[in-house]
Amino acid sequence: MQANEMEPLYIKINDIDNTAIIVNEGGLKEGTVFTCGIELQRSIPQGHKVALETIEKDGEIIRYGEVIGYAKDRLEKGSWIRDSLMNLPIPPELSSLKTYGTVKAGEPLEEEYTFLGYKNSDGTVGVKNILGITTSVQCVVGVLDVAVQKVKEELLPKYPNVEDVIAINHNYGCGVAINAGDAKIPIRTIQNLAKHPSFGGEIMVVGLGCEKLQPVRLNDGKDDDNIVMLQEQNGFTNMIQAIMDMAEERLERLNQREREVFPISELVVGVQCGGSDAFSGVTANPAVGYATDLLVKAGATVMFSEVTEVRDAVHLLTPRAESKEVADALVREMDWYDKYLDKGDVDRSANPSPGNKKGGLSNVVEKSLGSVVKSGTSPIIDVVSPGDKVRKKGLNFAATPASDFVCGTLQLAAGMHVQVFTTGRGTPYNLSMAPVLKVSTRNELQNQWSDLIDINAGTIATGKATIEDVGWEIFHDIIDTASGTKTTCADKWGIKNDLALFNPAPIT
Amino acid sequence: MQANEMEPLYIKINDIDNTAIIVNEGGLKEGTVFTCGIELQRSIPQGHKVALETIEKDGEIIRYGEVIGYAKDRLEKGSWIRDSLMNLPIPPELSSLKTYGTVKAGEPLEEEYTFLGYKNSDGTVGVKNILGITTSVQCVVGVLDVAVQKVKEELLPKYPNVEDVIAINHNYGCGVAINAGDAKIPIRTIQNLAKHPSFGGEIMVVGLGCEKLQPVRLNDGKDDDNIVMLQEQNGFTNMIQAIMDMAEERLERLNQREREVFPISELVVGVQCGGSDAFSGVTANPAVGYATDLLVKAGATVMFSEVTEVRDAVHLLTPRAESKEVADALVREMDWYDKYLDKGDVDRSANPSPGNKKGGLSNVVEKSLGSVVKSGTSPIIDVVSPGDKVRKKGLNFAATPASDFVCGTLQLAAGMHVQVFTTGRGTPYNLSMAPVLKVSTRNELQNQWSDLIDINAGTIATGKATIEDVGWEIFHDIIDTASGTKTTCADKWGIKNDLALFNPAPIT
Repeated sequence: MQANEMEPLYIKINDIDNTAIIVNEGGLKEGTVFTCGIELQRSIPQGHKVALETIEKDGEIIRYGEVIGYAKDRLEKGSWIRDSLMNLPIPPELSSLKTYGTVKAGEPLEEEYTFLGYKNSDGTVGVKNILGITTSVQCVVGVLDVAVQKVKEELLPKYPNVEDVIAINHNYGCGVAINAGDAKIPIRTIQNLAKHPSFGGEIMVVGLGCEKLQPVRLNDGKDDDNIVMLQEQNGFTNMIQAIMDMAEERLERLNQREREVFPISELVVGVQCGGSDAFSGVTANPAVGYATDLLVKAGATVMFSEVTEVRDAVHLLTPRAESKEVADALVREMDWYDKYLDKGDVDRSANPSPGNKKGGLSNVVEKSLGSVVKSGTSPIIDVVSPGDKVRKKGLNFAATPASDFVCGTLQLAAGMHVQVFTTGRGTPYNLSMAPVLKVSTRNELQNQWSDLIDINAGTIATGKATIEDVGWEIFHDIIDTASGTKTTCADKWGIKNDLALFNPAPIT
Repeated sequence: MQANEMEPLYIKINDIDNTAIIVNEGGLKEGTVFTCGIELQRSIPQGHKVALETIEKDGEIIRYGEVIGYAKDRLEKGSWIRDSLMNLPIPPELSSLKTYGTVKAGEPLEEEYTFLGYKNSDGTVGVKNILGITTSVQCVVGVLDVAVQKVKEELLPKYPNVEDVIAINHNYGCGVAINAGDAKIPIRTIQNLAKHPSFGGEIMVVGLGCEKLQPVRLNDGKDDDNIVMLQEQNGFTNMIQAIMDMAEERLERLNQREREVFPISELVVGVQCGGSDAFSGVTANPAVGYATDLLVKAGATVMFSEVTEVRDAVHLLTPRAESKEVADALVREMDWYDKYLDKGDVDRSANPSPGNKKGGLSNVVEKSLGSVVKSGTSPIIDVVSPGDKVRKKGLNFAATPASDFVCGTLQLAAGMHVQVFTTGRGTPYNLSMAPVLKVSTRNELQNQWSDLIDINAGTIATGKATIEDVGWEIFHDIIDTASGTKTTCADKWGIKNDLALFNPAPIT
């Protein structure tokens, strides 16, 4: 059956909801009557909300069992509920969030799951075997890019067990307020990226010499032969040779490694959404949430993130904090971000994007409620500050901006092996340091971008699959991708987006 | 004569200076006696300052005829004056800067200078013939990079008059507070980069579809066939094809263009310094300042920049403002930046870098005094806000951060054709959109990086050339580089640093 031949369909999430979203591709016309008897007062696009009952002026508009807005005027049953007809609720008062420890950990999965990874010299486990070359400052990037190209052409073919050579380029390092309080965020991010588990425990840093972020800070404070300093070289040709020599030494060592079996408890997975629509919170994100629960129950580490998309649903999360410390840490990160936005004279209404709105998401409250579903139902056992490494196995909140690339970069710094990324509008987002599995929220996106979408959760909306079905599919695909037996669509095409640091401090 | 065989030499800039810098490579040993009779109280490295007379506690330490600090304790004649022995002066009070119009424009040069450039359909003139592809959001970069690689391999060889294909990648566009007051800076920067004069008046934008920075805003508000929208394509292969098709149309048109003779008044030159040392203000920057005066007198446009390196010398600049409006604009930009740093809880002492200090620059006051010398002696006829286009021919102050790449990006957005970049410590800095001529401050850097330095101003310190000699050399090299008859060292090696936007607003 074609989606557009389907009977008129809406999805209501929670019993107390007085809104639901239109499932049918292309939306539904004015006058359409649902089997429940509700008649559309006007045409409503796919993913947009219909009023299931008449809502009086100032009345609560409810989705996910939560108030997502207040009616500016009376909304008739069957009418289209749009952003312009709603007032934004006040965000949860952070000081009021006192509850924690209300959720128990699920029973461990009976089957023991494993993946194939690489044992690193520093005790960590990687899922790729990559030579990572860290930069201390943007000044060296032009030279390093030439060198990396030469390494790929002339050296890499000699070391077939090494999967890639990656320059960790960024725009930090000099011309920045390096002693500002917030400078610790970009600095520790680069420090942790340099030691990403998929780099095999090998450190290689290319520095200039006069920069503020001195290269020894990216090498555990040691001034040893892990560092090439360009100002110490005799011109460009020597710079290239010095980088190639240091790279080859490491390629030789990396090439000797082979995949071994590891328990899934060694795996660190990040979940993120981007280009979201109203289906994100109904199909893809709940399926990811189910997979998150499976991973946690299997002993793995999962991070969910995106402070500005959690802020308005944080009252649903603090009760799930394992301890008072974790609940306080959640609140502390929200509070820091409130103040950061405030300093820039903006507020949370800066999210969602025009595309989110076109996809049916009226405001950041609705977006948040759909976003946090990715976290499943497990207790939150730790909060990771931006740029920090993950410390505990289980479900973590990694406090990052919602910006896809900044979130991705910070999850990588935290030690992420594989990322699961849900999208409704569609984005070809990818990372070079970790595979990204893309999950579509709608069948139409899967059909349109069949060569970019790895997993389709749109089948949940049309009743062809359950949340559990897709959740298990995601779970198995994560393991296969980590093991190197499955290649993501974006990796097949060689799509590689740049890293994007989070630097809340000024530049100079 | 080798530099280290030279007699002991220091450079004093202004008659009233009580300090001078050591010229000799490797510095000078304790007990060295200069011909004037001064004896070194201890060894002093090259570029570092010697006290020419005894300075009492709290006494003024003077270089460039200006107070660069106050002695923390008595400093003996012949002693080494270091950062740690000085207190930083208070920066000029902005509200006190009332003088303007004290400088007259120089006589126009007798000879009329010209360069070979490309006439653009929009009336501007370019010095390169490049296809520039603008991005509205980081999401598209991974796909665009694959497409650009294919364009270079499969299409560019068919159009030999086109010099390059460049993707204008950046990390703005979504996940940002796009309605924040300061968001206008990154937005207008991208808008102006998209129309850079070396792109032949051709506009090509790759957008995603759901981003906050809607692609039409990079195409004069028009939703026409200058835009490829990835969310409208059927998967990855169609995205690549759509980009290639649009690129080829433009390559055909660009390929038909030829260089023509233009008066130098069509040329826009940016000057910048990076990796500075104590010689920057003595050799390279004064030579650039001389070239700046020549360019201005020949009718060209010159921009100098770097707010944090101008702030402490701004009292020397406002008197040179052509009018009260220009002086006020200078003060306004300084004030904006003071507040920007203040919001981040940092101050101007965040500049200089460790390498600057190693090179003899004690503090930001000394660095600033050496930096502003690049502006020559002409009247300042306009102030360009960050991301804005230059409006007037003559000497402009383009208010940018001092960060090399951010300054370079903003000077490009202002319409810069060629950049002159002075360096003492050495940086392989380059841009892909405009050639960068690198001028070394010391002979030792020229010797060490002979394949990266285009012009050596170190000869000024050793008396082998005058400021005028090197100034004219820079002037002629700018014209040759603009005309395409001279290739910079960095361009020969294919060094291309990434753009770096200035986004003082929060990300979300």
